[in-house]
Amino acid sequence: MITFSQIPEIRLQLKAERNARHLVGFVPTMGFLHEGHLSLIKKAKQENDIVVLSIFVNPTQFAPSEDLDRYPRDLQHDALLAQQAGCDIVFVPPVDEMYPSGFLSYVTVNELSTVLEGEFRPTHFKGVTTVVLKLLNIVQPDVAYFGQKDVQQSIILKKMIADLNLPVRIDVVPTIREADGLAMSSRNVYLDPGQRKNATVLHRSLLLAETNIALGEHDPKKIVDAMTAMILEHNPTQIDYVKIVDAQNLQEKHILQSGDTIVLPLAVRFGATRLIDNIILTVK
Amino acid sequence: MITFSQIPEIRLQLKAERNARHLVGFVPTMGFLHEGHLSLIKKAKQENDIVVLSIFVNPTQFAPSEDLDRYPRDLQHDALLAQQAGCDIVFVPPVDEMYPSGFLSYVTVNELSTVLEGEFRPTHFKGVTTVVLKLLNIVQPDVAYFGQKDVQQSIILKKMIADLNLPVRIDVVPTIREADGLAMSSRNVYLDPGQRKNATVLHRSLLLAETNIALGEHDPKKIVDAMTAMILEHNPTQIDYVKIVDAQNLQEKHILQSGDTIVLPLAVRFGATRLIDNIILTVK
Repeated sequence: MITFSQIPEIRLQLKAERNARHLVGFVPTMGFLHEGHLSLIKKAKQENDIVVLSIFVNPTQFAPSEDLDRYPRDLQHDALLAQQAGCDIVFVPPVDEMYPSGFLSYVTVNELSTVLEGEFRPTHFKGVTTVVLKLLNIVQPDVAYFGQKDVQQSIILKKMIADLNLPVRIDVVPTIREADGLAMSSRNVYLDPGQRKNATVLHRSLLLAETNIALGEHDPKKIVDAMTAMILEHNPTQIDYVKIVDAQNLQEKHILQSGDTIVLPLAVRFGATRLIDNIILTVK
Repeated sequence: MITFSQIPEIRLQLKAERNARHLVGFVPTMGFLHEGHLSLIKKAKQENDIVVLSIFVNPTQFAPSEDLDRYPRDLQHDALLAQQAGCDIVFVPPVDEMYPSGFLSYVTVNELSTVLEGEFRPTHFKGVTTVVLKLLNIVQPDVAYFGQKDVQQSIILKKMIADLNLPVRIDVVPTIREADGLAMSSRNVYLDPGQRKNATVLHRSLLLAETNIALGEHDPKKIVDAMTAMILEHNPTQIDYVKIVDAQNLQEKHILQSGDTIVLPLAVRFGATRLIDNIILTVK
């Protein structure tokens, strides 16, 4: 496994890989790797000749009030895990390699970026789309792998790639969960033992909704109310949102119909820690 | 010469060219080709194996009040001229191929896009950067050629390419002029004979400034005042701007110093026709 921190060096290496007709799979991350990230690396390795992992805690997707400074980092452990999972190349740029002084260019995906997470983190997706576009241009992969846990991110990135004609395919890989159902997240380390236990309600509330929909409940309000009631029994600090939205345009559904593909995204705080989770399903 | 109107078809052709290790030069235009465009095609042909020309009157760079509908078009004549100049592939997409229903993604280059042309055409450069990024992703050229006549555009595109790590080089080719100095422009056909004659003052005013600077005049206000006085003698409808700006950040210069690289851009209306021109120079 080779590690690069400078753009010209990784470009040169990847040019050689492309010239050798090697398929390149790419897994962009903010590091502090968990089983979710490793599942992306493993899938990329199965489907490509070369796997590139980037580790970059991207400042432009954090608001000033958010956890940029305390976001967990452990590069040495990340490198070990990445190598074990089959990663070939790690790209760990310093901030000024990605955003040199005088940086001015940003990509925005309108509408999709202003709902759900966008209501609570209004500048977040502009930072995500901009850094992912940069990374895709640096790595020029055949396939880029993202986790379904950040479902809105994956839908926005798919839209950006289609709209801007980027020559890459996106693969969205199912969320990996702890044994008790909590979605893997680098931010789970922020939770104290009580919060950690209470947080398992998020996945249970999604399973409840899945069951209710399977049993024929087609009223999103009733489904969300039952989820909310269940979550409220587990001492959340705040429920930012629990919603049922169209999987294409992320607009709220007011009635479910057979054949609808929907996302149930939620964002809930336990203590100061904000967790997100979701399921995607097609109404039978 | 082959013409494509659909993205998948031109992509396939260009993939074959890249696999054959052919260098690809790209000339994006809005058509109605003149000697300026042809000089870009010829330079591209000298420096590459394959030259791709795009002809697309991009609606997102026109404001509702502007000349999108009456912008001159002559695809048949363009094809003839392009072939004679050495073009290999022409890409002429319909609007819905470039902007399908539900298009949401835009690129903006802050600060550089709000001055000069941006003050008079506030949405213009967002349209330019977005369509050029799309075209660069479709064609994936080694080099893209732009004319110096649209100097602010070329500076903004260079910045976008650097900031977003696009794997392409930009070449800015000197402005081609009529025998009497008027910069070649597809919009020159709008001018009536009197306006056409008066419009030659624009280049003469730039030459005056060049002479004054060479003679040691370092006060931008005096230089611009002399240019403005000269232009006003030729019946312009309106002078939008005549300025002396830094060639990197497009900010106005208040004093010239030896070694400064500067742009003198201007935009002047004759009748309803808005013309732009510029020179770039380094102060001795």
